[in-house]
Amino acid sequence: MHKIAVLPGDGIGPEVTAQAVRVLEAVGRRFNRKFQFAEGLVGGAALDRLGHPLPGETMDLCLASDAILFGAVGGPKWDQLPARLRPEAGGILALRKELGLFANLRPVKVFAPLKNATALKPEVVDGVDLLIVRELTGGLYFGRKAREPLAGGGFRVTDELVYTTAEIERIARVAFDLARKRRKKVTSVDKANVLESSRHWREVVTAVGQEYPDVVLEHMYVDNCAMQLVKNPRQFDVLVTENMFGDILSDQASALGGSLGLLASASIGGKTGLYEPGHGTAPELAGRQAANPVAAVLSGAMLLRYSLNLEEEAGCIERAVERVFERGFRTADLMEEGRELVDTVRMGDLIIEQI
Amino acid sequence: MHKIAVLPGDGIGPEVTAQAVRVLEAVGRRFNRKFQFAEGLVGGAALDRLGHPLPGETMDLCLASDAILFGAVGGPKWDQLPARLRPEAGGILALRKELGLFANLRPVKVFAPLKNATALKPEVVDGVDLLIVRELTGGLYFGRKAREPLAGGGFRVTDELVYTTAEIERIARVAFDLARKRRKKVTSVDKANVLESSRHWREVVTAVGQEYPDVVLEHMYVDNCAMQLVKNPRQFDVLVTENMFGDILSDQASALGGSLGLLASASIGGKTGLYEPGHGTAPELAGRQAANPVAAVLSGAMLLRYSLNLEEEAGCIERAVERVFERGFRTADLMEEGRELVDTVRMGDLIIEQI
Ligand SMILES: CC(C)[C@H](C(=O)O)[C@@H](O)C(=O)O
Ligand SMILES: CC(C)[C@H](C(=O)O)[C@@H](O)C(=O)O
Repeated sequence: MHKIAVLPGDGIGPEVTAQAVRVLEAVGRRFNRKFQFAEGLVGGAALDRLGHPLPGETMDLCLASDAILFGAVGGPKWDQLPARLRPEAGGILALRKELGLFANLRPVKVFAPLKNATALKPEVVDGVDLLIVRELTGGLYFGRKAREPLAGGGFRVTDELVYTTAEIERIARVAFDLARKRRKKVTSVDKANVLESSRHWREVVTAVGQEYPDVVLEHMYVDNCAMQLVKNPRQFDVLVTENMFGDILSDQASALGGSLGLLASASIGGKTGLYEPGHGTAPELAGRQAANPVAAVLSGAMLLRYSLNLEEEAGCIERAVERVFERGFRTADLMEEGRELVDTVRMGDLIIEQI
Repeated sequence: MHKIAVLPGDGIGPEVTAQAVRVLEAVGRRFNRKFQFAEGLVGGAALDRLGHPLPGETMDLCLASDAILFGAVGGPKWDQLPARLRPEAGGILALRKELGLFANLRPVKVFAPLKNATALKPEVVDGVDLLIVRELTGGLYFGRKAREPLAGGGFRVTDELVYTTAEIERIARVAFDLARKRRKKVTSVDKANVLESSRHWREVVTAVGQEYPDVVLEHMYVDNCAMQLVKNPRQFDVLVTENMFGDILSDQASALGGSLGLLASASIGGKTGLYEPGHGTAPELAGRQAANPVAAVLSGAMLLRYSLNLEEEAGCIERAVERVFERGFRTADLMEEGRELVDTVRMGDLIIEQI
């Protein structure tokens, strides 16, 4: 029996996680696995009901589970609150940190039936299959923040970007280990011509790389990488980078697949793995069953793969999604002429049919 | 008489600035303007000859000039040096800071004859005309850097991201003033859901925006912006953002035009404006007249516009470049079937023919 904590959160979070849970249940039936789901409050939803974006009982639920399926948190309603109470910093960032989830994996694989659905030429995105390994518990996100009033008026505001050798070593190892199971190439992304932390990043990744003589390591500046991801994304296998660069590059890379609504993620390395779609709460879509649940569903597949070690079951979900696209069904974010528009629940139904 | 300091730097820097100078000379003849050019050493070239990437005599030359035409600096040869001696930090970054060039303008305008030359679909890039206003003398680039040994071994390395209210105000004004002369829209890019400096950025830009009721202001998270620049770049007019985000987004945006070899830039706001191509030294191309000089040539046009107030002359260069592309001539970075390949010098000749 596998215990899965479900934290739907805000906006479209509840709608997309509902479909991910249904798909996991279908996989359970097909492969004869028992999953026990238990819901917890997080983000704005938790703030409104319990006064905190990450209540103690949610934390307890996570720690008592084998894996966490997360929706999305935040929204304009809570934007004016102080940071520690906001759904983002007080909710998902705190959860990542408390659980020690230092490695965020974001695969971008272009589904063949969707290779026309992007802003890029089909011949540029065809066959793209890359994995961004983003450091998730360090850097600017968690460094010291300060706002000091200045004598002449106004403020001096700072955020600190911090990395220790050990933090860089462990994320590098995750990247090299994953590359070994793939095309054996790691691109480490930094800004070593400007940042001291990047210079150390480069030294440490290089040193770790010597333990992996079978994996090719290259270093790339983040500005160049952002350009290369548009011009020639097929050159990449595994990318490894610090927290903020990873945030930017993975959203950018999601455009290669056609929609952020396809971007799954796994956050691992700590007590309990957390799986969440790469998109946000999309308040403008919430409550209308208009969102694409595929990112959440594919995050469920990653949960099976990385937390429960159920590779066959994970692959089954991924192929089911691809077949639904092949059959011509599209949520609004991916809609093209000649395709059939479906809503969130119907997309869930269609995927389940293919399980 | 206009005095222009020319700092060619390293790699392809000398080759591309040579063409920019020739084009400016042609404009001078056509419009009866006198430009006096004086060369200075900078970057690795200065380090090798004078022991410092920004020698005092180069600084003096810059201060005695009306504008600076800059090539590019850096290369593997100098990568192992301590930061303050490296061509990047010790050369161009020091120069930007010393001259107080806090506003970096990077226009991305897709030339109609090149709309097929990019990785994006022609209908996505057609008509793109945006301007990135990057803050250039603050943020992570110039904050305190530290590397402290840790008791258990290894280091703790930090870079500080710092902004003052005044720094944000002045760059916001540059963006709003420029937007007034364009399509009257400013997109301010930050990461206000995570960074304290971004929260202040958003407050200050919003406050400055009230002085410009005729300009529409929107705020966008940097991760979303990186995605939107691929999916729907036509939505943007003026983007304003901090130093590091601007570095990443402007290189990314250059891919919309087809090549970094087209990206011109102006750095203004201080004593003497500095104009440099958005690309680097491209050591693999250096010495072969294989680089695209258009970014340098268009930087020359920006020099005429922003430092010398010669708008007609600037426009003349821009139209000349477009006509050369219309006639089917391409440097290697933009080569497509059915076009004629030309080298750096020949591209300069062709542009001059159209002046
Ligand atoms: C919501 C936000 C704090 C978060 C981040 O920046 O990490 C999101 O953009 C993501 O990438 O998961
Ligand atoms: C060379 C480097 C320091 C520089 C920067 O990051 O500013 C370059 O990438 C640029 O954008 O001009």
